[in-house]
Amino acid sequence: MLKGLLGNGDSDMQIGIVGLGLIGGSLGLDLRALGHRVIGVSQRPSTCEQAIARGAVDQASPDPRLLANTDVVFLCTPLGMMETVAQQLCPHLHPETILTDVGSVKAPIVASLSLLWTNFVGGHPMSGTAEQGINAALKGLFVGNAYVLTPTSETPVAAVDTVTALARALGSRVYHCTPEVHDRAVAWISHLPVMVSSSLIAACSHEADGAVLEMAQKLASSGFRDTSRVGGGNPELGVMMARYNRDALLAALYQYRDRLDQVITQIEQQDWGSLETHLQATQQQRSCFQFQPQ
Amino acid sequence: MLKGLLGNGDSDMQIGIVGLGLIGGSLGLDLRALGHRVIGVSQRPSTCEQAIARGAVDQASPDPRLLANTDVVFLCTPLGMMETVAQQLCPHLHPETILTDVGSVKAPIVASLSLLWTNFVGGHPMSGTAEQGINAALKGLFVGNAYVLTPTSETPVAAVDTVTALARALGSRVYHCTPEVHDRAVAWISHLPVMVSSSLIAACSHEADGAVLEMAQKLASSGFRDTSRVGGGNPELGVMMARYNRDALLAALYQYRDRLDQVITQIEQQDWGSLETHLQATQQQRSCFQFQPQ
Repeated sequence: MLKGLLGNGDSDMQIGIVGLGLIGGSLGLDLRALGHRVIGVSQRPSTCEQAIARGAVDQASPDPRLLANTDVVFLCTPLGMMETVAQQLCPHLHPETILTDVGSVKAPIVASLSLLWTNFVGGHPMSGTAEQGINAALKGLFVGNAYVLTPTSETPVAAVDTVTALARALGSRVYHCTPEVHDRAVAWISHLPVMVSSSLIAACSHEADGAVLEMAQKLASSGFRDTSRVGGGNPELGVMMARYNRDALLAALYQYRDRLDQVITQIEQQDWGSLETHLQATQQQRSCFQFQPQ
Repeated sequence: MLKGLLGNGDSDMQIGIVGLGLIGGSLGLDLRALGHRVIGVSQRPSTCEQAIARGAVDQASPDPRLLANTDVVFLCTPLGMMETVAQQLCPHLHPETILTDVGSVKAPIVASLSLLWTNFVGGHPMSGTAEQGINAALKGLFVGNAYVLTPTSETPVAAVDTVTALARALGSRVYHCTPEVHDRAVAWISHLPVMVSSSLIAACSHEADGAVLEMAQKLASSGFRDTSRVGGGNPELGVMMARYNRDALLAALYQYRDRLDQVITQIEQQDWGSLETHLQATQQQRSCFQFQPQ
């Protein structure tokens, strides 16, 4: 039964999830707990079976025709597969079905999927763990975390309202902005840190003096551990961020390099007053970030 | 009674602590618990009183003559005051007293204090919290953390043995290396991360588009929180690191900037294979760091 355009947050919608990994599986667990009927689609039959066994879906199969009568479909594949999967999927959907995605970059996804499906709302639930796959799915993964929706001027308002209500029901803080503002914001707080942090690991690890490198590896504690954490993360995900958000990431990298050069110049010139002003400013600026739990 | 040259880890030494802040106070708490008599010296009488009240010292006063019969003296002032304080202190010490310090940079401290006191051993307990002062002192602060000693070819072996035994008795992992190896290692794992991290905060905070900055501040979660943490720390400490470890820090900054430029070039040229190779390497390299608790 199609109820998406009627009931925001209705508890008896039919919800499809395409791509049953960490995010898709976790969505399924929570949406079922909220009373919805959840239908999963994954290429691999074994993943479908695992999702059923874990209670993440009521029903699952590789066949997209299973989603013919869904109110809302969440597209939860990796970024690089979204357009192809949506092309295969859309011919089987009812015209009133709302399609939304969970990709971490929005402008290119919104541009291509809006052409394929009118009733499309770009989304990005900012939740995750270091794990992947259906077996990493968790109940309550989205509670307290940001969930960004990126409607354009052409996105149907009722579709935005329905996805907003679902995201709120998951316990997320929901924000609306344009795809471009989203992508530039996540370039700063998510994608730039990966490049900054991985460059730190690489530079240190190429120290040519073995005694210095060995001592650095022994002495590294919480400061290096935290600054290097995201640079030691999933390589495929890092490349995907850079590919899909290249322009915003490059703009952030150029501004970052300028800042770093200023710090280097201050130290070269022993301009300790300016260095202290810089560090006082960053101590204060950091307090402007909300740092909700993830 | 002077026992330092006799008893490694003896439990009835007279131990002086000059500078009663977080590190000095925490050393006092643990050394007293180990059975030593601890005598504190601080410029401010109110700090002496607080140290006594907290149980960090048996006795305290601004007068360095109190340390005339100590076996070991820990110099725990900020880096910038160490040489001056040592000059005032040394005329009052017994020639057999072992002097050690807790400064986070070693080459300049070891060079100047070795000239003032033959029986000097450079040291760096790598423990700390975000707090400062005697009221932040904690029992067990050093347990499980690195404690580096930096003897030179001229440092008396018995003095190194005594300080080593005391550091082990605090529960630390004790490492010995030259002052120069220490300084280059901490440039990588402690001082460079502060500059990398503060430049990240500064670059992001200067985003000119208010909507993007506001969204970045709302969406920032664990990735940005961790990568920016040490860049939001104590500004005076950051400047002190850069002043005292300038050469090693600049060398690390130049190598870091080269690495960052390579990443920027890979993204500019859409050389995703090389970017993935870089991120795969850093994922593997990070696992070579020990990340003991701090």
